[in-house]
Amino acid sequence: MPGLIPDSHADLVSDDTRAFAVLAAVMADGTPQATPVWFDAEGGMIRVNTARGRTKDRNMTARPKVALAILDPDDPYRWLQIRGTVLSSATEGAREHINRLNFKYHGTPVFDGPLDQVRVIFIIRPDKVTASS
Amino acid sequence: MPGLIPDSHADLVSDDTRAFAVLAAVMADGTPQATPVWFDAEGGMIRVNTARGRTKDRNMTARPKVALAILDPDDPYRWLQIRGTVLSSATEGAREHINRLNFKYHGTPVFDGPLDQVRVIFIIRPDKVTASS
Repeated sequence: MPGLIPDSHADLVSDDTRAFAVLAAVMADGTPQATPVWFDAEGGMIRVNTARGRTKDRNMTARPKVALAILDPDDPYRWLQIRGTVLSSATEGAREHINRLNFKYHGTPVFDGPLDQVRVIFIIRPDKVTASS
Repeated sequence: MPGLIPDSHADLVSDDTRAFAVLAAVMADGTPQATPVWFDAEGGMIRVNTARGRTKDRNMTARPKVALAILDPDDPYRWLQIRGTVLSSATEGAREHINRLNFKYHGTPVFDGPLDQVRVIFIIRPDKVTASS
């Protein structure tokens, strides 16, 4: 996990935790949205996955600046605050990614959401990271 | 707890939980911020408390639209998403309020932050609430 996440908090973005992230994005009217999400990390990037057409899909597609807070489920005083930028989004590979997240969070390899749902993967680059312990 | 919080999730904003909220606010440049915070609720309003001059103080003072996500510490699939408006902020009563929050979260009646810190209490009106269970 190269990148801005400090080694001291690398476990919070690893596959060894089931910590959720709260994703903050901005609505068209400039007001914020805060949504609990599954996520994983690869190569210093945070990856989230949503269904096409959802509010967070529309917000992140139109306004790529986002923020994330990730709290240690065992100690909420230990957390990461991330401000970042959506570098890319894609439907290609998104079904595999949501299955991967399903495995991370549930231990089973197939996400059981509607099969006709179009999934989208978002790649978020952390620009500023604050860690609390 | 009158207001928009459904009875099914009233425990998540009661004094019986130590759940944190993640507060989303908007920076001067229009990008979002996401911060773990203590909170409580009274009369249908969510109350948070910060030190004067912090980023979230500046953001909420300048741009009163905020969002909150509150996850059940025992079941992160059970959560509240709140979009709301800062109705007021005040330094008066804010020291008593942070002591009250200290009691909620730590069980001890006095917040041990720097005494010369100016505390500010923000009263947030939920405008839209989504509950997941």
